[in-house]
Amino acid sequence: MFHHALDYRVAYADTDRMGFVYYGNYLALFERTRTELLRANGLAYADLEAAGTAMPVIEAHLNYHAPARYDDVISCYGELTSFKGLRVTVSCRIMLGDKLLVDGYTVLSFIDMATTRPKRIDGELRALFEKLAENKP
Amino acid sequence: MFHHALDYRVAYADTDRMGFVYYGNYLALFERTRTELLRANGLAYADLEAAGTAMPVIEAHLNYHAPARYDDVISCYGELTSFKGLRVTVSCRIMLGDKLLVDGYTVLSFIDMATTRPKRIDGELRALFEKLAENKP
Amino acid sequence: MFHHALDYRVAYADTDRMGFVYYGNYLALFERTRTELLRANGLAYADLEAAGTAMPVIEAHLNYHAPARYDDVISCYGELTSFKGLRVTVSCRIMLGDKLLVDGYTVLSFIDMATTRPKRIDGELRALFEKLAENKP
Amino acid sequence: MFHHALDYRVAYADTDRMGFVYYGNYLALFERTRTELLRANGLAYADLEAAGTAMPVIEAHLNYHAPARYDDVISCYGELTSFKGLRVTVSCRIMLGDKLLVDGYTVLSFIDMATTRPKRIDGELRALFEKLAENKP
Repeated sequence: MFHHALDYRVAYADTDRMGFVYYGNYLALFERTRTELLRANGLAYADLEAAGTAMPVIEAHLNYHAPARYDDVISCYGELTSFKGLRVTVSCRIMLGDKLLVDGYTVLSFIDMATTRPKRIDGELRALFEKLAENKP
Repeated sequence: MFHHALDYRVAYADTDRMGFVYYGNYLALFERTRTELLRANGLAYADLEAAGTAMPVIEAHLNYHAPARYDDVISCYGELTSFKGLRVTVSCRIMLGDKLLVDGYTVLSFIDMATTRPKRIDGELRALFEKLAENKP
Repeated sequence: MFHHALDYRVAYADTDRMGFVYYGNYLALFERTRTELLRANGLAYADLEAAGTAMPVIEAHLNYHAPARYDDVISCYGELTSFKGLRVTVSCRIMLGDKLLVDGYTVLSFIDMATTRPKRIDGELRALFEKLAENKP
Repeated sequence: MFHHALDYRVAYADTDRMGFVYYGNYLALFERTRTELLRANGLAYADLEAAGTAMPVIEAHLNYHAPARYDDVISCYGELTSFKGLRVTVSCRIMLGDKLLVDGYTVLSFIDMATTRPKRIDGELRALFEKLAENKP
């Protein structure tokens, strides 16, 4: 079940000389989607880092179906598709109205920022990710 | 067989607040790798577009093994791993010395820039991509 | 008289390893400010280009007073401070609440996109820029 | 006296839909120019930060004379034009062969990274910046 995370207005800065959003820039939109998906569920990622835990991306995949253009307002949808203690997979869809432009996913791990070592999360944080992973139909 | 395509000095502009190269920025390095791989084989991608053919990316995949840091000089390697008339797959490896930082691939199609329709390439261009795809051991 | 043009959530993608928004990224915010300032006055910049006129930036100035940080929601204000037939100056202020982070301006010219030559605008477009330039107290 | 700091190949990632390098991206080139200017004079900026001193940009100015295009190899020149204990001004010129594309400057201060307070540099570092500032004709 994909949740609407944010709308984003394409700037000139986002485009390339083909007239479309540069293919690398969608990963920043995937980041914004993850952040707003978590925030909508009560977790500000900035607070997570402030408490010493970071979630680096360890894998990313993107399928480009159709281009976004300058001044388009595109919609970013996200779903936490799996959580397995050490890793989270978040799927993303970038749409222009009903039209799918880009979809894909990122896999994130949890690390202790002090040691940069992998970290198994627990307590409320674990409960949140479990709840999100169960929210799928 | 991966070919050394270019070396790249990491700028402050490339980093994020975790102190590493932002995960989305590697797709620009994948682009530079493709471009230099083609140039080393006699094809300036700019000339291809000037002649009316573009190669948009339709799929991208990245695995993040270790971070690149500010002022690192990282090395970008590429290999054309498959060519099937309408699509090309280019694999990339970003290394810091002997250490693998990021690997992955992009899949590109050929389009006619005037119509934005898919295009089957032929002649010298086709021969070049066939040669590159055969260069693998 | 500065007008509120947009609010912007700082992403990880915008930050650098000092933990702040990278100094070069504010020019994209200056662009967004100009675009929304024009849109609020009835002019979609995309339509202007569709009609054959572009407004390239010919000069930019930025003063950095304080840094924006990850996840800050910063506010962008703009004012058209001068219009002289061939050139427009737009001043920008980036604020975090009441705190001034960055201010500066960009100077833009008008060009005919077909010829890339400077162009003197007239009619409704000229009237719009004259009105905006007069809107100052 | 401007010193050649580096050459830079324009990537697709650097361009915008007008077909030129996006105006905001030149500040990353100004950064690279400063870094290589210092390195050529024996100072790796990364070492400066490792020793606890950072040089944030407090002012930037750019004049856009002509556009850089995809695949251009542009040359970046820098000059330390003034040093006054707490502030350094570095002028930059971005050229395509003999043609001036962009020039401008950045003003940087010195801060103690632990306290983020302004810092008056001394010793070898001060001597280096004084020497660079005197190198002008």
